[in-house]
Amino acid sequence: MTTFNRRVILRSRPVGIPTADNFAIDQAPLPPLEPGEFLLRNVYVSLDPGIRQRLSQVDSYVALIRLGEALTSTTLGEVVASRDPSVQPGEHVVGFHTVSDYSVTRRGPLTRKVDLTRTFCASNHLSVLGMTGLTAYFGLLDIGLPTSGETVMVSAAAGAVGSVAAQIAKLKGCRVVGIAGGARKCAILVEEFGLDAAIDYQQKDLALLSVMMREAAPKGVDVFFDNVGGIQLDAALACMNDRGRIALCGLIAQYNLRGPPPPLTNLFKMIAKSLRMEGFVVLTYADRFSEALDDLERWVNEGKIIFREQIEEGLERAVPSFLQLLDGGNHGKMILRLSDTYA
Amino acid sequence: MTTFNRRVILRSRPVGIPTADNFAIDQAPLPPLEPGEFLLRNVYVSLDPGIRQRLSQVDSYVALIRLGEALTSTTLGEVVASRDPSVQPGEHVVGFHTVSDYSVTRRGPLTRKVDLTRTFCASNHLSVLGMTGLTAYFGLLDIGLPTSGETVMVSAAAGAVGSVAAQIAKLKGCRVVGIAGGARKCAILVEEFGLDAAIDYQQKDLALLSVMMREAAPKGVDVFFDNVGGIQLDAALACMNDRGRIALCGLIAQYNLRGPPPPLTNLFKMIAKSLRMEGFVVLTYADRFSEALDDLERWVNEGKIIFREQIEEGLERAVPSFLQLLDGGNHGKMILRLSDTYA
Repeated sequence: MTTFNRRVILRSRPVGIPTADNFAIDQAPLPPLEPGEFLLRNVYVSLDPGIRQRLSQVDSYVALIRLGEALTSTTLGEVVASRDPSVQPGEHVVGFHTVSDYSVTRRGPLTRKVDLTRTFCASNHLSVLGMTGLTAYFGLLDIGLPTSGETVMVSAAAGAVGSVAAQIAKLKGCRVVGIAGGARKCAILVEEFGLDAAIDYQQKDLALLSVMMREAAPKGVDVFFDNVGGIQLDAALACMNDRGRIALCGLIAQYNLRGPPPPLTNLFKMIAKSLRMEGFVVLTYADRFSEALDDLERWVNEGKIIFREQIEEGLERAVPSFLQLLDGGNHGKMILRLSDTYA
Repeated sequence: MTTFNRRVILRSRPVGIPTADNFAIDQAPLPPLEPGEFLLRNVYVSLDPGIRQRLSQVDSYVALIRLGEALTSTTLGEVVASRDPSVQPGEHVVGFHTVSDYSVTRRGPLTRKVDLTRTFCASNHLSVLGMTGLTAYFGLLDIGLPTSGETVMVSAAAGAVGSVAAQIAKLKGCRVVGIAGGARKCAILVEEFGLDAAIDYQQKDLALLSVMMREAAPKGVDVFFDNVGGIQLDAALACMNDRGRIALCGLIAQYNLRGPPPPLTNLFKMIAKSLRMEGFVVLTYADRFSEALDDLERWVNEGKIIFREQIEEGLERAVPSFLQLLDGGNHGKMILRLSDTYA
């Protein structure tokens, strides 16, 4: 076992779009384990847009990352030492940990053992069978409440959460419209994920987006699963049907803004159409994760949900991969592999 | 019976704040009654902020008022002629009618007979026992879902809908914070309506409003009943508790804007705090009006809900009174009396 631990730390708070200068890799000694703690050698690290929110001086539902401290995210690791009798070296654990070679952690509602023999692909525990899939599952089904024959629209539909939400909506018998950036991603939405229509938001203003949404959803939108905010949300408000539901999952269009977000010019539609908009945090549903994971695992194993991962190798790739993710240049869920022991 | 009918018509569409020039009073002949129709002599006319929305080129949940046509609103009238066997001259009817001396109408889900002997004050059927009270009732109870001990905040709390919503929240055992414009209205909120705290929004920016809300609601806000939108809504988002509910009833701060509304800089709180925001239209609840009116009538008769009306006399006062209402200069629900037969 090593005596030092490489960590990706926050060096300065980004204003606007983060750059590589905001981060660094340092080496820190590993503290001795306290009773109940165990040490993980991280194998996979999930890189998510939500990390951006925790880099800035705004409060969020998870703690702000402190200057000079390691970033945190969901990781999958192998236990290499343990002072918890219920956790043995060689077992695998998923939880919210430091982005580093090793993490000290303990059991908790969000830290759970995973059985790598049950799934095709270990990294899935950080994606479709992890927070990503769970976020899509609860946001779409519990907040969106789609019923067969309704129209569901998903923003960032080629992204990790969006692609799962869109495919679950298809499984539920809905017409599904995906929004993504660029012709290539839009082609993937229709050809690979089987969506009914795709909208390329790039270089579109509010008015044009609304027109495109109306064309793609001629019966109007009953459920909007939104990862983006900004003018996509504003345009969607104009296309919602009476009693429509908006599951607010993320506001990625707004995280890097230096100034205020654009106004919601169509907010009155909330009243005129009796719309419901509801934000959510997947951790709220922690006591139902196993139920959801059973569904997700079955759908993945049956090939009903297709999931893309972009696996990057090595801790040095953490920052460039995160920046690529924020830029929308990724091809699937961004995951970092820190060890090549597991395929 | 007269052969002509004075009507308040829309002469031009206002841009920004309406002025008297946008309106006129004309005289139009009364059409002969078709089978099923009856003729009302209007006694009371409700003047509501929501009329503003229907004057402009934006769609709303009720039809836009057409240029050259009479304004429409809720009126209470006496039947003076009828081709509906179930409606007799001398009976009284409340419904959505033209703002005019006489209205031709027919029975429908929103047009109902009222028994003037059951209430202290006939005009109450256009206020606390009409759409105003029903809007407060369903918005607060069905969307806000307040429980005893929670904190409820109401904007435009000295206004017609807001004052009823705030008092119902008090009846349900909540701490209630009202927002209103000016020291006088704020004093009324506390001293007359019995609210726990009042916030004067005038000359306050977003940051100061948030601070005042936190002071007035030290445990945070569980339910926000919003009639206003704009920076009051934005500030409220920052003060909501986990799983808070926002009942979006109106956006009066935005109706007269020439440009876009201010941005909702705190929209991310929807996600971080798992908030639900829901717009509503009282007509949705039409099949439950009688249940709600039973409650409201009992509360009014028991003195548990106090309600202010500002009664203006004569059709000539329709436009000045409406403009005063939009300016916030009214003292209670604005009602026009067209005949002095009923007190």
